[in-house]
Amino acid sequence: MNAANEIATVGSDLDDVISRAIDAKTKPLGALGRLESLAFLIARIQRTVKPSMDRCQLTVFAADHGIAVHDVSAYPQAVTRQMVLNFLDGGAACNVFAKLHGVDIQVVDAGVAGPPIDSPHLLSRRIGEGTGDSLHRPAMTREQFVSALSQGVEIGRRAPGQASALGEMGIANSSSAALVAHKLTDHSLADLCGCGTGLDSAGLARKIRVLGLAAQRTPRRLSPQEALEHYGGFETVMMTGAMLGAAAKGKVVIVDGYIATSSALAAVALAPACRDYMVFAHKSGEHGHTAMLQSLKALPLLHLGLRLGEGTGALLAWPLLRAAAAMMSGMASFEEAQVSGPL
Amino acid sequence: MNAANEIATVGSDLDDVISRAIDAKTKPLGALGRLESLAFLIARIQRTVKPSMDRCQLTVFAADHGIAVHDVSAYPQAVTRQMVLNFLDGGAACNVFAKLHGVDIQVVDAGVAGPPIDSPHLLSRRIGEGTGDSLHRPAMTREQFVSALSQGVEIGRRAPGQASALGEMGIANSSSAALVAHKLTDHSLADLCGCGTGLDSAGLARKIRVLGLAAQRTPRRLSPQEALEHYGGFETVMMTGAMLGAAAKGKVVIVDGYIATSSALAAVALAPACRDYMVFAHKSGEHGHTAMLQSLKALPLLHLGLRLGEGTGALLAWPLLRAAAAMMSGMASFEEAQVSGPL
Repeated sequence: MNAANEIATVGSDLDDVISRAIDAKTKPLGALGRLESLAFLIARIQRTVKPSMDRCQLTVFAADHGIAVHDVSAYPQAVTRQMVLNFLDGGAACNVFAKLHGVDIQVVDAGVAGPPIDSPHLLSRRIGEGTGDSLHRPAMTREQFVSALSQGVEIGRRAPGQASALGEMGIANSSSAALVAHKLTDHSLADLCGCGTGLDSAGLARKIRVLGLAAQRTPRRLSPQEALEHYGGFETVMMTGAMLGAAAKGKVVIVDGYIATSSALAAVALAPACRDYMVFAHKSGEHGHTAMLQSLKALPLLHLGLRLGEGTGALLAWPLLRAAAAMMSGMASFEEAQVSGPL
Repeated sequence: MNAANEIATVGSDLDDVISRAIDAKTKPLGALGRLESLAFLIARIQRTVKPSMDRCQLTVFAADHGIAVHDVSAYPQAVTRQMVLNFLDGGAACNVFAKLHGVDIQVVDAGVAGPPIDSPHLLSRRIGEGTGDSLHRPAMTREQFVSALSQGVEIGRRAPGQASALGEMGIANSSSAALVAHKLTDHSLADLCGCGTGLDSAGLARKIRVLGLAAQRTPRRLSPQEALEHYGGFETVMMTGAMLGAAAKGKVVIVDGYIATSSALAAVALAPACRDYMVFAHKSGEHGHTAMLQSLKALPLLHLGLRLGEGTGALLAWPLLRAAAAMMSGMASFEEAQVSGPL
């Protein structure tokens, strides 16, 4: 957990300077709405009124989940591996959006079931062949947790650019995310559980029943470490680490959707200072995301009903981060442009 | 009004083909939310399951408003001209966002008060030195209306790219927009009026009082032509024309915010077929936009509390249009990527 100690508290000493710089731009006060608060956040992290936001890397963490055997997902477990191959072939939504926006993708095998995938384009950081079945036992050992988290920290530290977008793939990981969020907040499983990739109402009822039984194994609230060991996924623990590592390097962390927000909950519980580095890309179409966002007092940028994961929401939000930084660095002030102020 | 007749009805004959193509992509059904309906709209207009969306032009129409003399805006009328100069110098928000996204800007002087602005980068289509004071008389003559609309149609027709983003600048044009929308819908002025560039509550009350008096000059409902002649602006009438011209050329029309939506209301009233070419970029922070959007049954893409105009919301939405088209043209299908479907 060294990364947690290395995350610098984002200072408020420049807040007035940054606010004045935003207010001096040639636009009515506050007329760029949420983009102004986003610009403020970026300027605060970078400690300048001329922030830059020109490079971002998306890291997609993939792994499998033992709890998938209980039919908590609409898709078979094999899809995790198949989608990793799709990422490597460039055919997935994350590839298409990343290419469009000039964002590099790094795909990490954090523990996909089956034999290792042989590809020079895949970063292999396999913690195991999927987690254990958390209905009956912890999803991972202490050693696996520590390894996944620290590998994630390193990945987060090393990612290039001023922002790190983080995505995931893992059949049944919405079940894992719901359990982690349940153990880290006061929200009920019913408030946190959604249909994932497309369960029908009977499927959702089954999912909530299975997760309720899994939750009963442990006390109502857990520490972030306990919650991740008992119910996390290799990919989501690694993503939590990557959030800490990116924040430790002063990067903006672009939190994708439902699954990524559960990792953000854990990251903030482990290291509260990382909260100030986080931008929440979008409000997911997955029921339960609202409750998680509330716990983090997070206002997402986009409201498009996305529920795909892979970092796709983070990629769609990336141009807004660029625009926010460009506003501060590129727009003229009233004085510079000789434009009159209000009457 | 030839453009109105030239707008092809967007056919529904390919709807099933387009829906199947979207559903075949490697993602859970509907998992890309609003981006899927956006992709559907674009594919329908372009009549292909592999649409392209790689070029867009922003046209910013500027003009002044006679009603500004009644202190209905927080800013002095001189700001219209000053901001046009700012656009030409590249210092405004629209310049910064357009540059970021590789969108060309064309600035049109539709009738800015004072002498003509001498610049090779400005398209001069001056209908007059600002409109008449619509509190007491029609904002423009029939001839001025016809000229502004037809110039707009030509501009819309000629703009390059698969999409036309349309923006505006004109001190007091939120007053003009509210009056036009009031005469074209059942919404009250109170439901349609907001604080514009930043009126306080006393200023807003004054604005509603002035607009109420202006509205009393004419019958409760007007035809689009009458509404625009009595209360429109040279820039907003020209923008209405540009929407018709762009739709006639089969381009997607990216409607910006509050002011642009009033032009969209008029365009749809003049030529209902153009509605299917419109994408509503964002829900403005300006009170009254919600009512206008309801009248058009429009679901905006972004919810960022923007209220700047200049086409800034359209520019921020442009990457979503690109992503929607790229999704259809670039993503692999389940079959192509050999990914399993649902259980």
